[in-house]
Amino acid sequence: MSRYEIRMAGVGGQGLILAGQILAEAAAIFGGKYAVQTQSYAPLARGAPSKSEIIIDTEEVDYPKVEVPDLLLVLSQDAYEKHIKTVKDDTVIIVNSNEVNIHGESGTDRKSMIHKVPLEDLSRSATGKNFAASIAALGFISCLTGIVSIDSLKMAIEKRAPKGTVEINIKALEEGFKACS
Amino acid sequence: MSRYEIRMAGVGGQGLILAGQILAEAAAIFGGKYAVQTQSYAPLARGAPSKSEIIIDTEEVDYPKVEVPDLLLVLSQDAYEKHIKTVKDDTVIIVNSNEVNIHGESGTDRKSMIHKVPLEDLSRSATGKNFAASIAALGFISCLTGIVSIDSLKMAIEKRAPKGTVEINIKALEEGFKACS
Repeated sequence: MSRYEIRMAGVGGQGLILAGQILAEAAAIFGGKYAVQTQSYAPLARGAPSKSEIIIDTEEVDYPKVEVPDLLLVLSQDAYEKHIKTVKDDTVIIVNSNEVNIHGESGTDRKSMIHKVPLEDLSRSATGKNFAASIAALGFISCLTGIVSIDSLKMAIEKRAPKGTVEINIKALEEGFKACS
Repeated sequence: MSRYEIRMAGVGGQGLILAGQILAEAAAIFGGKYAVQTQSYAPLARGAPSKSEIIIDTEEVDYPKVEVPDLLLVLSQDAYEKHIKTVKDDTVIIVNSNEVNIHGESGTDRKSMIHKVPLEDLSRSATGKNFAASIAALGFISCLTGIVSIDSLKMAIEKRAPKGTVEINIKALEEGFKACS
């Protein structure tokens, strides 16, 4: 591996910014790689498009922009419609099947390659709550790609998750990991 | 104003990543602009170089990389030596005078333009602790440049600062603001 580009997209309130930070810190601080994480904010918070991009590399990352992602995670329908057009043939695509309906023209030829994961169901079954869906996605990503280990992710959650939510987030992480294996 | 590029640099543990997030969310979610925030992670945490870059714009930000900053904040000597070479003639430069000694060849011709602010002293006098120096810097930036309002920064701190540290961070913010005016 050298440079690995990840794009995670959804709407504000889905926890993508925290998830992006946890992924970057897991890869770098606890995983021995370099990482750059970029988040975009619009004038609105909840409900507005939200995007977090992470580049993981064995060398220092000079150029922080994700061009064509190696991995695309989409948590909402709008994010799917917008970003499915930006993938390459071997992009790993993970969609939150609780929110995203794959249909129509968009991405038709890639349909069979898309990992449909009920991320909110996984979060709810592990924790009783929906809000850790993006953390469940990190578990799935860890299992599927090996780009970052589950142990590094747990350490990053312990460092970064808001107080009182560490245990819940780790349960969701493990549920996401199990859903892939 | 259209595009405004900010680079904040120091070492891990100085709170620059949280400060960058608070600044971006203050500008966008509470300030009605678009913002992109990029943070770089190295394989080590505390003591390793840390950098947070923020671009604030009245339109959506397409290119997330800071080339030549409009504002440079440096909290450590190493960060000063490295980044002072990247400024342009009208870059606003703020250094943490508790850590940075301005000397030698680097940036000599800009010396008179540099704002030397004892950010750790400000944090300590407001809160009894050093750790809010980067938040004191945000108050100073708000007063000096007007790029983001003190009220937007307070709302972003309430949203983003770890539980139990909101009050301390707001005190440091106000102390930094007062130090400029």
